[in-house]
Amino acid sequence: MATQRTTELRRMLALSYPWVKKPFVVGAPMRIMAGPQLAVAVSAAGGLGFMGPQAKPDGVLADLDKARELVEASNLRHPLLPIGVGFQVWNGDLKVATSAIEKHKPCAVWLFAPKNGQAELDEWTVSLRKASRDTKIWIQVGTLSDAIAAINSSAPPDVLVVQGSEAGGHGMAKESAGTIVLFPEVADAVNARKDLGIPVVAAGGIIDGRGAAAAFSLGAAAVAMGTRFLASSEARIAKGYQDEVVRASDGAKNTLRTHLYNHLRGTFGWPDVFAPRTLINRSWTDHEAGVPFEKLQVLHDEAAKSGDAGWGPEGRLATYVGAGVGLVRDVQDAGAIVENVRNEARGILKALSDDI
Amino acid sequence: MATQRTTELRRMLALSYPWVKKPFVVGAPMRIMAGPQLAVAVSAAGGLGFMGPQAKPDGVLADLDKARELVEASNLRHPLLPIGVGFQVWNGDLKVATSAIEKHKPCAVWLFAPKNGQAELDEWTVSLRKASRDTKIWIQVGTLSDAIAAINSSAPPDVLVVQGSEAGGHGMAKESAGTIVLFPEVADAVNARKDLGIPVVAAGGIIDGRGAAAAFSLGAAAVAMGTRFLASSEARIAKGYQDEVVRASDGAKNTLRTHLYNHLRGTFGWPDVFAPRTLINRSWTDHEAGVPFEKLQVLHDEAAKSGDAGWGPEGRLATYVGAGVGLVRDVQDAGAIVENVRNEARGILKALSDDI
Repeated sequence: MATQRTTELRRMLALSYPWVKKPFVVGAPMRIMAGPQLAVAVSAAGGLGFMGPQAKPDGVLADLDKARELVEASNLRHPLLPIGVGFQVWNGDLKVATSAIEKHKPCAVWLFAPKNGQAELDEWTVSLRKASRDTKIWIQVGTLSDAIAAINSSAPPDVLVVQGSEAGGHGMAKESAGTIVLFPEVADAVNARKDLGIPVVAAGGIIDGRGAAAAFSLGAAAVAMGTRFLASSEARIAKGYQDEVVRASDGAKNTLRTHLYNHLRGTFGWPDVFAPRTLINRSWTDHEAGVPFEKLQVLHDEAAKSGDAGWGPEGRLATYVGAGVGLVRDVQDAGAIVENVRNEARGILKALSDDI
Repeated sequence: MATQRTTELRRMLALSYPWVKKPFVVGAPMRIMAGPQLAVAVSAAGGLGFMGPQAKPDGVLADLDKARELVEASNLRHPLLPIGVGFQVWNGDLKVATSAIEKHKPCAVWLFAPKNGQAELDEWTVSLRKASRDTKIWIQVGTLSDAIAAINSSAPPDVLVVQGSEAGGHGMAKESAGTIVLFPEVADAVNARKDLGIPVVAAGGIIDGRGAAAAFSLGAAAVAMGTRFLASSEARIAKGYQDEVVRASDGAKNTLRTHLYNHLRGTFGWPDVFAPRTLINRSWTDHEAGVPFEKLQVLHDEAAKSGDAGWGPEGRLATYVGAGVGLVRDVQDAGAIVENVRNEARGILKALSDDI
């Protein structure tokens, strides 16, 4: 019965995005790195691509203009703009976001990281729904309690994204768990609200068809991938950073969550409950060895001037990736990634169904 | 091709345990709690049950005698004793273990937690293989580097168990990752040694058919479950502890890894790299609030005298569980757990294969 409900919700999600092929693959809204090129490439391959937040809130306008241009040159045809847009709520600008959504009417908006909990997410949801009635609101959570707050709020989301602790970039600083346990426990709580019918999307640790098939087995209506798309031709990423995504292995040992790199980059103010997962490099090992922040800052800024050489085990720049980075072994076109993950996941599920 | 290799290894594992039904479910060797009753019940239901280590090394002899008696009264018929035996290497007694294995010839031995790395595991493997040629040696690892050390050793295991960070009880203290990323990265490294052909078993966060189907999707040859069997009729567990396993939810928030409870119980000497995942209760919250250890010890020992009341959010006793504890919602017979997980996993894989 649970399986039947999951199937219904998976189909319900798909109805809103008719160009998306089964199984449903989402490109996550990575800040900066998921630009219009990546988002449109993912959608054009039969996935759903999200653009991430930009360096400054009003950057979304230029990105949306560019995305529209790319969509018009593509095979994608849909009444709404067939990509999604992600916003970082705590330092976002709701007015700018609302007018951007009103102008471009993307098919989905993905909200993440409020400073003031669900109340702030409600405020964004209401404002964005007014601006574009048919745009679906996706809300990302990393804990059971935040999921319960979202579904019981006055403005519940259309789609809930559950991010496991494996995810790269910002996620829960503590009190998180791996996708294999977090996802089903949250999904059970969401599905208990039968009146709502909210599809639940899995994020965190999904890199290839194996992870995708695993997430669908857990009950995901779609799988969202971030780190894998850092190593795509369309990612808006420095070569030194991308080279690290391909090179690095053993994310258990070589990644951790820390605010050190945010602070070295001059980013302050993230709500305490969040912290980004990054590859370990010299900034961290020197910090652990007791080098004072001021000195790390100088070395970091020098490294930033050195370009691609600023990344790597001996580099000093932020290298946000998920714990599954060791499964990323090459740069591919985003469309190939989407197709490969889909095919591999389908092949695995078919083989298991036949043999088990 | 990777899928085909995974299928081969899954079948190869099954050949050694002909009474085990597909998909292959393993009862993990939880110390004390997985006694002969639980192990035999899991095997009798078409799984492979392991007994865990006992309070003292020579406890294994009485447990094996009891297991043999239960097997003889069951429908299980096999030239070897159709259950497995787990040993905690760092404080185990290889002489006792060797003579126990020589006498009872169980179908599998599961080795975990050496003090001196792979060299110590090699020593155990060689000694146990001499004692019982056909007993398969399973080695549990929690990191990519330990997996690589195991497969490249002079005495590689017959089966490798990969334990994700979600697991309850003792696992890697740090430098671990969730099953969804750790498993495939380790499996790729193991499968690269084509000359060996070592099946890889997943452990950590597998509680129901969803987790099992997910783990098989990741490439597992079998799934090992611990926490779910704590809430089985056959577990050797106090009612107060078992009630907590059923009651507790949100393992992300309510569990953590700490040695505090080991120390309160008078257990010292675990190698630093390991630490147990436990439910949070008053011992931990008081510790965090600055109550000195000596005082915690007195309160703990009083709680221990109070029996089942010693567990619970206001209790003080060690309550080792995995992060998926929120998915355990009732006590069932071990045989029913095995059968339900198998049926649910098969149903999920079938439904996905048809629909995706």
